[in-house]
Amino acid sequence: MNKKHEAAWEKTKVLIEAMPYFRQFHGKTVVIKYGGNAMLNEDLKKDVINDIVLMQLVSMRPVLVHGGGPEINGLLKKLAIQSSFVNGLRVTDAATMEVVEMALVGKVNPSIVNHINQANGKALGLSGKDGNLLVAHQKYAIITDEKGKTTQVDIGQVGEIEKVNTELLNSLLEQGYIPVISPIGVGTDGKSYNINADTAAGKVAGALKAEKLILLTDVEGIYRDYQDKESLISLLHKKEAEELIKKGVIDGGMIPKVECCLQALAEGVVSTHILDGRLPHSLLLEIFTKEGIGTMVAE
Amino acid sequence: MNKKHEAAWEKTKVLIEAMPYFRQFHGKTVVIKYGGNAMLNEDLKKDVINDIVLMQLVSMRPVLVHGGGPEINGLLKKLAIQSSFVNGLRVTDAATMEVVEMALVGKVNPSIVNHINQANGKALGLSGKDGNLLVAHQKYAIITDEKGKTTQVDIGQVGEIEKVNTELLNSLLEQGYIPVISPIGVGTDGKSYNINADTAAGKVAGALKAEKLILLTDVEGIYRDYQDKESLISLLHKKEAEELIKKGVIDGGMIPKVECCLQALAEGVVSTHILDGRLPHSLLLEIFTKEGIGTMVAE
Amino acid sequence: MNKKHEAAWEKTKVLIEAMPYFRQFHGKTVVIKYGGNAMLNEDLKKDVINDIVLMQLVSMRPVLVHGGGPEINGLLKKLAIQSSFVNGLRVTDAATMEVVEMALVGKVNPSIVNHINQANGKALGLSGKDGNLLVAHQKYAIITDEKGKTTQVDIGQVGEIEKVNTELLNSLLEQGYIPVISPIGVGTDGKSYNINADTAAGKVAGALKAEKLILLTDVEGIYRDYQDKESLISLLHKKEAEELIKKGVIDGGMIPKVECCLQALAEGVVSTHILDGRLPHSLLLEIFTKEGIGTMVAE
Amino acid sequence: MNKKHEAAWEKTKVLIEAMPYFRQFHGKTVVIKYGGNAMLNEDLKKDVINDIVLMQLVSMRPVLVHGGGPEINGLLKKLAIQSSFVNGLRVTDAATMEVVEMALVGKVNPSIVNHINQANGKALGLSGKDGNLLVAHQKYAIITDEKGKTTQVDIGQVGEIEKVNTELLNSLLEQGYIPVISPIGVGTDGKSYNINADTAAGKVAGALKAEKLILLTDVEGIYRDYQDKESLISLLHKKEAEELIKKGVIDGGMIPKVECCLQALAEGVVSTHILDGRLPHSLLLEIFTKEGIGTMVAE
Amino acid sequence: MNKKHEAAWEKTKVLIEAMPYFRQFHGKTVVIKYGGNAMLNEDLKKDVINDIVLMQLVSMRPVLVHGGGPEINGLLKKLAIQSSFVNGLRVTDAATMEVVEMALVGKVNPSIVNHINQANGKALGLSGKDGNLLVAHQKYAIITDEKGKTTQVDIGQVGEIEKVNTELLNSLLEQGYIPVISPIGVGTDGKSYNINADTAAGKVAGALKAEKLILLTDVEGIYRDYQDKESLISLLHKKEAEELIKKGVIDGGMIPKVECCLQALAEGVVSTHILDGRLPHSLLLEIFTKEGIGTMVAE
Amino acid sequence: MNKKHEAAWEKTKVLIEAMPYFRQFHGKTVVIKYGGNAMLNEDLKKDVINDIVLMQLVSMRPVLVHGGGPEINGLLKKLAIQSSFVNGLRVTDAATMEVVEMALVGKVNPSIVNHINQANGKALGLSGKDGNLLVAHQKYAIITDEKGKTTQVDIGQVGEIEKVNTELLNSLLEQGYIPVISPIGVGTDGKSYNINADTAAGKVAGALKAEKLILLTDVEGIYRDYQDKESLISLLHKKEAEELIKKGVIDGGMIPKVECCLQALAEGVVSTHILDGRLPHSLLLEIFTKEGIGTMVAE
Repeated sequence: MNKKHEAAWEKTKVLIEAMPYFRQFHGKTVVIKYGGNAMLNEDLKKDVINDIVLMQLVSMRPVLVHGGGPEINGLLKKLAIQSSFVNGLRVTDAATMEVVEMALVGKVNPSIVNHINQANGKALGLSGKDGNLLVAHQKYAIITDEKGKTTQVDIGQVGEIEKVNTELLNSLLEQGYIPVISPIGVGTDGKSYNINADTAAGKVAGALKAEKLILLTDVEGIYRDYQDKESLISLLHKKEAEELIKKGVIDGGMIPKVECCLQALAEGVVSTHILDGRLPHSLLLEIFTKEGIGTMVAE
Repeated sequence: MNKKHEAAWEKTKVLIEAMPYFRQFHGKTVVIKYGGNAMLNEDLKKDVINDIVLMQLVSMRPVLVHGGGPEINGLLKKLAIQSSFVNGLRVTDAATMEVVEMALVGKVNPSIVNHINQANGKALGLSGKDGNLLVAHQKYAIITDEKGKTTQVDIGQVGEIEKVNTELLNSLLEQGYIPVISPIGVGTDGKSYNINADTAAGKVAGALKAEKLILLTDVEGIYRDYQDKESLISLLHKKEAEELIKKGVIDGGMIPKVECCLQALAEGVVSTHILDGRLPHSLLLEIFTKEGIGTMVAE
Repeated sequence: MNKKHEAAWEKTKVLIEAMPYFRQFHGKTVVIKYGGNAMLNEDLKKDVINDIVLMQLVSMRPVLVHGGGPEINGLLKKLAIQSSFVNGLRVTDAATMEVVEMALVGKVNPSIVNHINQANGKALGLSGKDGNLLVAHQKYAIITDEKGKTTQVDIGQVGEIEKVNTELLNSLLEQGYIPVISPIGVGTDGKSYNINADTAAGKVAGALKAEKLILLTDVEGIYRDYQDKESLISLLHKKEAEELIKKGVIDGGMIPKVECCLQALAEGVVSTHILDGRLPHSLLLEIFTKEGIGTMVAE
Repeated sequence: MNKKHEAAWEKTKVLIEAMPYFRQFHGKTVVIKYGGNAMLNEDLKKDVINDIVLMQLVSMRPVLVHGGGPEINGLLKKLAIQSSFVNGLRVTDAATMEVVEMALVGKVNPSIVNHINQANGKALGLSGKDGNLLVAHQKYAIITDEKGKTTQVDIGQVGEIEKVNTELLNSLLEQGYIPVISPIGVGTDGKSYNINADTAAGKVAGALKAEKLILLTDVEGIYRDYQDKESLISLLHKKEAEELIKKGVIDGGMIPKVECCLQALAEGVVSTHILDGRLPHSLLLEIFTKEGIGTMVAE
Repeated sequence: MNKKHEAAWEKTKVLIEAMPYFRQFHGKTVVIKYGGNAMLNEDLKKDVINDIVLMQLVSMRPVLVHGGGPEINGLLKKLAIQSSFVNGLRVTDAATMEVVEMALVGKVNPSIVNHINQANGKALGLSGKDGNLLVAHQKYAIITDEKGKTTQVDIGQVGEIEKVNTELLNSLLEQGYIPVISPIGVGTDGKSYNINADTAAGKVAGALKAEKLILLTDVEGIYRDYQDKESLISLLHKKEAEELIKKGVIDGGMIPKVECCLQALAEGVVSTHILDGRLPHSLLLEIFTKEGIGTMVAE
Repeated sequence: MNKKHEAAWEKTKVLIEAMPYFRQFHGKTVVIKYGGNAMLNEDLKKDVINDIVLMQLVSMRPVLVHGGGPEINGLLKKLAIQSSFVNGLRVTDAATMEVVEMALVGKVNPSIVNHINQANGKALGLSGKDGNLLVAHQKYAIITDEKGKTTQVDIGQVGEIEKVNTELLNSLLEQGYIPVISPIGVGTDGKSYNINADTAAGKVAGALKAEKLILLTDVEGIYRDYQDKESLISLLHKKEAEELIKKGVIDGGMIPKVECCLQALAEGVVSTHILDGRLPHSLLLEIFTKEGIGTMVAE
């Protein structure tokens, strides 16, 4: 074997190694929450797009749910609209809601769709209003005072999903489209709701009985000890996850992500993953290599 | 027959009269350019939405292409972005394009989709980027100097459609969706283009070989003599249309509308209509009554 | 708005009012017993035919079961065949049966089919023999003597339905045909049976799990007090119906009609109606107006 | 091999011999004009019915068009309606037409359907009105006076077919039904027309591009010399047929039969046959034996 | 009726008699174990092939499983490979297995396929490896010593079927192919297994829920008294079969055949038959004559 | 990025590089002639099998045509059957033909099928007799004497293909099977023919209008100068190929391979390749790397 062939042969070895994963995920639905650095950094964005198109090419069925905090903040700022937060949830009055929708549905979503199509994928953008994809109702913030008493606070058009129109999604998947979903819900009264993108991805994955739910984040995964980078947890079972939350090891913004994983598992998703979106091709790394990356949360 | 029955009987008479139109348009595609007052006035908006849902119920296949000038202007103003115009076409730099897209795709489109769904229709929003629905290329403004010399002027991301992905539209129509389309085109290089909504509607109608193209406008139709309201033309044939343009009877903003009708007819649309969107239920009036309304442009 | 538009606008208002009914009955099967004056009077006949074609056009699935007493009597008379009756049931010997079949299948049925087709509907005539549509067995008359002792009397080829070939009906409905059915049953031994048209319509409606069973009759509906025309019952529940029969308020020829409604409800029909076929467009009045007409019998 | 087996073996030999015919006619449409003695004699009737059910069982697609002269005459007589004839065509006024329709559609047709179903076939009766199966227009009689001058005579509702709704027939054949057709045509104005059954069968065969058209008659076939029973023609080519008509060898009622065969051949039927319906199982004899029977008319 | 017609008429009578059987077996699957004299004798072979093609023509779905002992023995002999037997089962080492496979898959199977195709049937050969048609595991011989103690003996690649890929068979049957199956099983580890052809046929019939399982053998059927040829049992019920085995009336090579029938019945086959393949056209005799032949084993 | 991730990242890079090839060959048919060392060497065999299963997994449609010279020779030798050759073609008498068929159909083919299935592919073996897949006629050897006179010599059952049953192949491909074909042809008279495997692969590729025909051989490809290993031709156009044959640069066993490529191109195959089957994973190297390997023969 000559030099040229040796180099090529190295490549084919990799394809051969990928075979069991091609087989395992053939025709399977993978729901990806796409947000954070993976969406801001142009190189990472290109990687994610390429990974998704590759997944489609080898017969997987990727579905994207995207976030867009920076875009929302940018537009709010330009329009001089102030935001206040309760428990980390943005108080969403009508003016804010309009900006959220314009930023997500009118800017972030078409940009992702366009990038996928440019990479020869076949994407189609949806918001929760299209075909009543995401039916939602209002969600209240719960605040606890010093004495431990909890009060429900009305924070406006913040919602949680009660129904996903899977018929529409399945029909688009069947026709070979990659659905790109903005996490805007719609009430039965037609009101718009701002939905957390992780939660929306979890609900969509649960409704589709997806093979995988992948949350792309800006951390490596979940640590047993946040100080010690060596303590990254590769596989976190439900029971342990609940304990770690109780103990406060999992805290802050990670709690809703883990809870969304647990909820998706309960609704029939096979495995859920919290990945580091800052890592190039983290999606492929997770799917096509034995070791996987980040933290897998499982039953 | 008693009083109660008499009243009811009046109603059934109307249904009987509508029968030939139910029959004539059964399963037929009607592309509607929705804009102007019919979109601004809440009562008119409700009427148009109801008319469209009714069309769907009696087995027609409505497709909407919407405009949104006021929404675009409003957002540009809030963001303090100045616009200039050449030959009535907005010079569209990147910042303007972004605003156009946010206003149309992120605000106007979901609002229409939502209204239709609230009225128990089944709508789904699309921009030209979804599944590469509207592939476009740049369009230049043509200006003529005093000596009659024409020059091409680059006015940025203003485009014209070269291809409509009818497969996507037909599949959605087959599944019972009303497609609501924002006139944003996408270049083969992924660039966004601002497309005139009338022209987009005409192109979509032509590509779908629609039965009807209806342009909802803020005038009654075309007059032989603009001063004389009695001179409204009910039926305008291609030849006469071309003459009236030459003579200057049809001028200004009406020229592109008439040209878009003629183009659609050339591509196989059966009839085209310029209707007064300020009239309540103008769509139903045109479709379900013998007399029709506005101006019909035909071969 | 000018005069012309005002008139047209009145019409469109009606269409808008009809929308909820278009929606409610979209794709639903409605079985209609067509007989009495509605079949004899040429104007009423035209109305019924038009109503049925309209129902088909707005995506309902009408099925007709027709009677034909006058035609049978006329032909029996011309052929000098005498009829005797037991308990209101015609004693049906072989010669009479042949006449019944000729009158219904050879005269009434093709005439209805033809009228529907002339009105641009798409009808196809069936007797119970076609594809063994209505399998039946003999039915005996029950007579009660003075002492209350009941005796079964053989009245010849009078039958009751034991099985409806719904596969044939559904296939024809799927292809867009309006089935027009003559109430002739066929025994497993090939014998013909004369079936009461109301009962046949009820059985067909039950077998098809129809949305509505409508019996067109020559009365306004059911009265609480037959003398008092103001006492018409709009909605009669099963329980009350049974009581009114026991009390003798519902009597004579109305009993089998009400029992046929109750039977159809028990087999899964959603609502049943006894309408006045002498009223022009009574079908449309019932289906497309809020108030409805006649008496609705429901669970 | 013992006695019992020998007898059985004789039978299997026949099945083996029939194989090439099973193969040849697999899935092929055969249109049969059923009339004359084969319809009057109970034994022959049973034979024809059995033959047709057998054809269906071995995957052929039989279609029946029936006559019914004796039934029509019987009913006319009972109703004391006089008939006159012009050129062998019955002058058909409205009263006569009604009787023709009642006799054919209300008596003969259901009887055949019933017999086939009793023999475990799957038949469905149709008249030309069902789904506008046979669209027709009036046909005039042509009489020639002594001087050879021809005059068109109006003989009432006698018609000729201009269009056959093959979509309906093919759909029923696809679902495994044997269509049994009464030769009643319908004008575009809804008028009924009395059609010659041979001609109707020929038109149906032509429209279906049938493999075979079989006319069951009361003669053995066509003779070169009517006196000499040995002169039966087994195979008659178009050219010779035309010559024999010119020479007067083929005359009287046989002329329209031969012309109907020639017409069917011209419209794409593969072979046409004039068979002796008085012969038991003449259909099977023709189809499943090498020698065939009667006269085959071919291009 | 003349002589020629009389002869033909005799034939048509047979077709008429065969009708109930055509009807009974329409679309039904019949699995045939083809072996013994019926495969060796050229005339018998031709008969079997013709019978099978006829079955296919009249809409039955024959499936063949073939044996091939003589071919295997012949090839082993030519290659000078010795065979030993335990309990009538051939000890199958790797070299023997290779010969078995070559003889069955490379010689007997293509020869049968070819004969069927030459007779205008449409056959396709399969071994248990094709699409993992017959998944098997090793089967041990059970030997009993003088004291009645049983020992399991390893006799090499002799197997029994644990799973039949009915999806493949049904798809081929749907496309009109006659599957011809070599009884070679494949282990989940890819090992080849020699399977008894009777047992394989029974398993295939059971998996397909066949209408009939027919074992072609070299005996007339099962006798109550082997000495008395008059004691042939026409119908043997499960219970009696088990008793006759216990009593030793059914013994030797007949035991596995009867057990295979009982097993197939238990798995849903409607009837099973042990036929004399030495009788010409024994398949047709069984299927198309009232008396049937051989021994039918039923629940 | 840590070490673990770096290694994994190298792998994902390869997948990304392979994307254009996944896209290019999505759903495309690739016909592979499998023979020579690639079939004899166990490691190479495993590689080829894996490559083919991978091709199937990433939505390509591989079809295999196999050779088997060594197996044939081995069996002939064991059976002491002598072979003679004319012009490199084996003289194939009946006994030899039987051996060829047993070796290919009964040994080589099931072994390949089994290996693919073991590697979790989904294969099904076919010979040219199955469903008359390869209809052939006899081929004569042409010998040229010293004076240049050519004579046709009868060399027995050596054949060339005249028709490929693509319906069967397409149906199996549609169902996800990898067809594995033994190059045995069948005459219209049922005679078996020994077909050259390269030629058979070419004919199958041509009939399927395959994207690629790949001949796995035991040479690196075609050289401009056989002595100089650096002179390997990467891309050989039709015209040059014909010249090189004329000049004698391409000679011996390479001529029929090149001619088979040219023939396949003429029948619509997009590209043809002569690859070195001795190279591990030569199939993947050719398909999934930019440089390709071996010699591509193109129009």
